[in-house]
Amino acid sequence: MSSEISPLCGETTTDRPEIVNPAESPNLAIGIDIGGTKVAAGVVDEQGTVLAELRRQTPGRDPRAVEATIVELVSELGRAYRIASVGIGAAGWMDLSGSTVLFSPHLAWRNEPLRSNLERLLCRPVMLTNDADAAAWAEWRFGAGRGESRLVCITLGTGIGGAMLMDGRIERGQFGVAGEFGHQVIMPGGHRCECGNRGCWEQYASGNALGREARELARAKSPVAQEILRAVDGDVEAITGAVITELARQGDPASIELIDDVGGWLGLGMANLAAALDPGMFVVGGGLCEAGELLLEPARRAFGRNLTGRGFRPAAPIALAALGPRAGLIGAADLSRNPPR
Amino acid sequence: MSSEISPLCGETTTDRPEIVNPAESPNLAIGIDIGGTKVAAGVVDEQGTVLAELRRQTPGRDPRAVEATIVELVSELGRAYRIASVGIGAAGWMDLSGSTVLFSPHLAWRNEPLRSNLERLLCRPVMLTNDADAAAWAEWRFGAGRGESRLVCITLGTGIGGAMLMDGRIERGQFGVAGEFGHQVIMPGGHRCECGNRGCWEQYASGNALGREARELARAKSPVAQEILRAVDGDVEAITGAVITELARQGDPASIELIDDVGGWLGLGMANLAAALDPGMFVVGGGLCEAGELLLEPARRAFGRNLTGRGFRPAAPIALAALGPRAGLIGAADLSRNPPR
Repeated sequence: MSSEISPLCGETTTDRPEIVNPAESPNLAIGIDIGGTKVAAGVVDEQGTVLAELRRQTPGRDPRAVEATIVELVSELGRAYRIASVGIGAAGWMDLSGSTVLFSPHLAWRNEPLRSNLERLLCRPVMLTNDADAAAWAEWRFGAGRGESRLVCITLGTGIGGAMLMDGRIERGQFGVAGEFGHQVIMPGGHRCECGNRGCWEQYASGNALGREARELARAKSPVAQEILRAVDGDVEAITGAVITELARQGDPASIELIDDVGGWLGLGMANLAAALDPGMFVVGGGLCEAGELLLEPARRAFGRNLTGRGFRPAAPIALAALGPRAGLIGAADLSRNPPR
Repeated sequence: MSSEISPLCGETTTDRPEIVNPAESPNLAIGIDIGGTKVAAGVVDEQGTVLAELRRQTPGRDPRAVEATIVELVSELGRAYRIASVGIGAAGWMDLSGSTVLFSPHLAWRNEPLRSNLERLLCRPVMLTNDADAAAWAEWRFGAGRGESRLVCITLGTGIGGAMLMDGRIERGQFGVAGEFGHQVIMPGGHRCECGNRGCWEQYASGNALGREARELARAKSPVAQEILRAVDGDVEAITGAVITELARQGDPASIELIDDVGGWLGLGMANLAAALDPGMFVVGGGLCEAGELLLEPARRAFGRNLTGRGFRPAAPIALAALGPRAGLIGAADLSRNPPR
């Protein structure tokens, strides 16, 4: 099947007239963020600015189809910009050299040599990276954690993505799979996690956790859930974390309480991370952060209440991510220019 | 009071005849491990061998009295060896430069500039370090974790000491207080910890935890606790982790079960650390390791059962520490020769 994808090598040998200011931005990179539902691609300059962006639906789980989509996006974006390298961020574990996808939960990659496949097709250097690592790198380079020497980033989406930056390097562990903070067991025997365990942090502090708790509240037919049920026309299954976040921002007390609970779990887990890692700062991003201070205020409270040694140590500040949903593609692009040491 | 302590400067300017092979070991260091009950000091060569050792009772909590004991130990050991530097390991938090004790749970040090006090008294370079960091350094340099690029060390005593080595460096965090693995909350609302929280890991996987569980079993008047009660002549308060460890080694089934439970908690907490840190190896030391495989076997089982992503990643091996109770002083001595970068 891969032979059906046309490599872009012919295209890259010509300087095309549409190239925008190649002299001013000689080192443009494309970052591609592959999610379970969407693929986002953007041209990113050395200051972290996104010059152009495209989005596609994720074309199922077939690796060849995903590769074809990547080639299409690079080809399209490459028409107007001279692209030096391509960075791919995806949920999953990459080997330490950024060559192979060891495992990806939402895609069918298992020991997939994606990098060499793509370098052949794109005729440019390619770097694979974990999506949470990419987002953390972007926040460290251009965002809320700029220049911090010990930075922990938490990305709150359906689950929890995690990454740590130490002395300007993503700390990826011995086998490249560090930073899975969402799978610290924080409640033995607790809610089942898709990782196979029970009681993982992401079952308590994520968009999925928020939705599950809200549905449980609604099913209990509590009068406090009235507004929530009204918002989904009585369809309990339609209650998601995003619905609750929106209702909380509109002032619904039950939704605010639900987010407060999630914030408490968020702060407790961060206190655990501070005990182990002692970062200088936490940056919290991801979709759930649409809730803003409704989430962060209780998180900070629980963090302060559970930080071991509180009163005898500085408490790391907890900041909202600055780059929003583009952090992943910005970081992937930038990492392709700054391959990890 | 400090003026009562005589500095050793006069002594160090003479080459005394008792010096043992100064040419062969030009870089001897003294390591001093200050515990809540004992101070251990030893002369350590560059291969990590302890050439001489002394022990004293910890002289209460007064910093000046502890300093006097240190001077006495260095003076005594210095009679037979030419000592280039002195390393001090103690439970507590040191600042990143190794100059000041920020906080020590068992001693009265609070923002104590111990290093400059001691350098004045000892007339030699002094390095302060956390006792768990010192033990980990020793295991990495000379023991079970030799040369590992990502090593996590767990010291199981009354509580849990933790440290991580990354690329040959102790990772101490932004404020120097990383590695407090024992205070990850692993059971919200669980047993009260002396750190002020509830449910810390060290309340479930430590010598204290083992003793507490055994006393509870004995108080429940369970017939399975017969052997345990016999060993302490019916005095429940005399049941400690050390008593249970000894009984388990003699084959008492209840004591073996109690250690098995502690091993389970140990493995669960290590799985949490593996999720976050992805080390290449764990080294487990400290007094509780007298239980050997009675502890490690259930720990490995629980680790394997709770490791997130198991089956899709390598599982770090879990090894017993090799240097025993001298690891702290060996590491403190060696760190005084190899000050952290």
